[in-house]
Amino acid sequence: MDVELKSRLEGKAKCLGHDLTSQEFALAMDAEDPLRSFRNLFHFPKRINIPEANGDVTESSRDPVYFSGMSLGLCPTTTKDLVCSSLDDWANLGVHGHTTGIFPWAEADLCVDEQMAALVGAKREEVAVMNGLSVNLHLFLLSFYQPTPSRHKILCESRAFPSDYYIIESQIQHRGFQPATSMICVQPKSGEEWIDEGEILRVIEEEGESIAVILLGGVQYYTGQLFDMAAITAAAQRKGIIVGFDLAHAVGNVPLHLHDWNVDFACWCTYKYLNSGAGGIACAYMHERHNATVKPALQGWWGHKSETRFDMDNEMDLEEGVRGFRLTNPSILMCASLKASLNIYHQTSLEELRNKSIMLTGYLEWLIRHYFSSNSPGFSSQSTIRILTPPQPERRGCQLSLCFSIPLSDIYEKLSLAGVSCDKREPSVIRIAPVHLYNSFEDVYKFVEILRGILYHMTVFG
Amino acid sequence: MDVELKSRLEGKAKCLGHDLTSQEFALAMDAEDPLRSFRNLFHFPKRINIPEANGDVTESSRDPVYFSGMSLGLCPTTTKDLVCSSLDDWANLGVHGHTTGIFPWAEADLCVDEQMAALVGAKREEVAVMNGLSVNLHLFLLSFYQPTPSRHKILCESRAFPSDYYIIESQIQHRGFQPATSMICVQPKSGEEWIDEGEILRVIEEEGESIAVILLGGVQYYTGQLFDMAAITAAAQRKGIIVGFDLAHAVGNVPLHLHDWNVDFACWCTYKYLNSGAGGIACAYMHERHNATVKPALQGWWGHKSETRFDMDNEMDLEEGVRGFRLTNPSILMCASLKASLNIYHQTSLEELRNKSIMLTGYLEWLIRHYFSSNSPGFSSQSTIRILTPPQPERRGCQLSLCFSIPLSDIYEKLSLAGVSCDKREPSVIRIAPVHLYNSFEDVYKFVEILRGILYHMTVFG
Ligand SMILES: Cc1ncc(COP(=O)(O)O)c(C=O)c1O
Ligand SMILES: Cc1ncc(COP(=O)(O)O)c(C=O)c1O
Repeated sequence: MDVELKSRLEGKAKCLGHDLTSQEFALAMDAEDPLRSFRNLFHFPKRINIPEANGDVTESSRDPVYFSGMSLGLCPTTTKDLVCSSLDDWANLGVHGHTTGIFPWAEADLCVDEQMAALVGAKREEVAVMNGLSVNLHLFLLSFYQPTPSRHKILCESRAFPSDYYIIESQIQHRGFQPATSMICVQPKSGEEWIDEGEILRVIEEEGESIAVILLGGVQYYTGQLFDMAAITAAAQRKGIIVGFDLAHAVGNVPLHLHDWNVDFACWCTYKYLNSGAGGIACAYMHERHNATVKPALQGWWGHKSETRFDMDNEMDLEEGVRGFRLTNPSILMCASLKASLNIYHQTSLEELRNKSIMLTGYLEWLIRHYFSSNSPGFSSQSTIRILTPPQPERRGCQLSLCFSIPLSDIYEKLSLAGVSCDKREPSVIRIAPVHLYNSFEDVYKFVEILRGILYHMTVFG
Repeated sequence: MDVELKSRLEGKAKCLGHDLTSQEFALAMDAEDPLRSFRNLFHFPKRINIPEANGDVTESSRDPVYFSGMSLGLCPTTTKDLVCSSLDDWANLGVHGHTTGIFPWAEADLCVDEQMAALVGAKREEVAVMNGLSVNLHLFLLSFYQPTPSRHKILCESRAFPSDYYIIESQIQHRGFQPATSMICVQPKSGEEWIDEGEILRVIEEEGESIAVILLGGVQYYTGQLFDMAAITAAAQRKGIIVGFDLAHAVGNVPLHLHDWNVDFACWCTYKYLNSGAGGIACAYMHERHNATVKPALQGWWGHKSETRFDMDNEMDLEEGVRGFRLTNPSILMCASLKASLNIYHQTSLEELRNKSIMLTGYLEWLIRHYFSSNSPGFSSQSTIRILTPPQPERRGCQLSLCFSIPLSDIYEKLSLAGVSCDKREPSVIRIAPVHLYNSFEDVYKFVEILRGILYHMTVFG
């Protein structure tokens, strides 16, 4: 475990006068958490509604522990109101809602882009709210990926999220090249799980002249590794490489400074840490220094300057920058739903959230190492847990990926039964994310107690 | 006016014992309309909420007349319930809603595609519910438009909807060709407004060998002209041309038989006659005979076979046909909203709706010709109205486009003030759509009375 983080946690425990393994520690941490009331702004799933959780439960595990924020963020309590207001506008105004009402629909995306830009460290005009994530990655690559015989490669990593992988493969093929020769997948060192950033920098240094584009997840979805986007961007740009990030698992999770890092482009979805609901509207960022030179390969009327868009004269007058990449009129329901969540973020800052997040995930890590490392004094079960996520706080977000030494299916089922929401990746990994906005230290405590119970039971009863 | 339609209307009036110009005729038509109760399934805008309508009004014009269905369909009364149920699932289930609840989100699009396919005359597997309209047109063109030096043209029409125009231009450029030499825009004959289909067939016959793709609106957005999609498709395919239709203004408006017509591909939005709300999710159709040969140029994880999609092994195993074109996980809110409207369509048939629609639009046309043609006995204002929409029912949907002989802005403002929702296209055209599902013969009567009042007033008081 990271030495500094460990000593921060242990110092905190000493200062509070509670053992780190005690429930009192968790409760005391929650009591002094300035962000604790944010939890009340979200709906927690009800155990009774979750089929997997409808079994026999012990008293202590009755409340659900929601650790699936990296898959789907929880529903803000204000979402329904905002969505319903939009529906009311539609009911009461019909087509006039395009220009009046709480969100004039013709500008629905412009009602959310400013708050969105703040979360990624971009200027408002560098961000567009549009489409789905996979669509946006394609739209950018069509413009930014301009392969030549000598520079035609796209660098990603071997365990890229499937959609990104297929996106890169099909973009390479669309340009007449072959993934086998144009796709560089950086691998973790043998025996390791996360990617050595030195390896990425080495590939950039050695093969940079043949690389056209780098596309990486800002936070790796499987391991939770946070990349040093500033360093990768700087190194790549020295070699003339375009750098794009898929921020699905990074946005809302860690502070981002896309503009200052000089990142060329980035895309993200909003249904994970941004709590916009399944299939929520996605976003796209392009650095303003490309405005004069990078044009959307594919164009549509929503990229037309808005002042004259409705003149309908079929003379394209593109909006500047990323807004010119917009193709289609935005969904009012999706913008309203996203707005509800951004309003919550707006009441705090990512720096403050990150402070809590580091402690929350650190605490989780400490407990897991304490109980489930074979060399730990607290070890008391026959399954060990290896943490696939980097130990350094600056190299991860809130998620930890846990690898079990015994078969997972039984453990996962029992976790579900006990009301824990988490994500299973066969054969042996679960991913859990204690989320700053709505998870508590008590959630972490409960989760570990449930897990201990399950593994102890399996130890004793086979 | 179409002779048969005229005599049907006049015969109907005789049979009901009311003059065609009388309010009694409208009321009697509504009384015997088997579809009249569908109107109650929609929210009508409230005059009081519409800024433009908040002026002084005469008693007779107090109820709004909503004729903007070709821009934005009205909100079904059940939409809020369905959308809220999805939000409740999210609140109550969190990530478990992907597999349980009223719409398991991981299959949200598959909860609507069957009803959707029925409305366009396609097999369920030929339709995918995804993205926005402009996005889908691009995705198809990337696969279907494979220009060669000898066959590189796209045929459209000169007044194509702006987005389609920009889509075609940018696709041509993306392939390294020039719109000036690769885009054929069929024009209306001089002095005419709508396009002579003979002209399209002539261009196909004469220039067919150089045309790669034809992309036309099924119903032209500006004039309301309905194209003979079957005839155009057959003629084009004899020349080896791929035929696609933008059905934004056709779907839900007129019966469609995409599969039987052998149309290659089609896309449409759902916020007009399909009442899914501003920016609602769009759809795409591809004829199944292309399944084996036409692959999506751009791919994403949602095009992966769903049974193994979550194995996340980065081995693409594409879904067959149009489903392989899906890139991104669908929005649950947008699917729920679309579902509410499709449930209404499911209670009747497009053939029944079309029967009513022909009479409703015919009645509107009859009254407009009666009062506003200078050679008509009923003519009593100084403005004439020229109807830009073809007179034959088989060559139009429900929309009429009206061209005024005097400046429009004043007229449009007064129409708004009197609670009429319609669409203004400067300098002199308004587009109006009496919609089968929720407009009545009385709406038509009221609209014409309001318009008469406005034009009479202008005649008398200048
Ligand atoms: C005929 C036609 N095509 C395309 C569009 C563009 O639609 P979207 O913004 O949904 O992509 C519209 C929108 O009104 C349309 O009427
Ligand atoms: C890292 C990453 N990239 C891309 C996607 C694909 O997202 P979408 O379906 O929103 O396009 C996801 C979805 O979970 C993801 O986690």
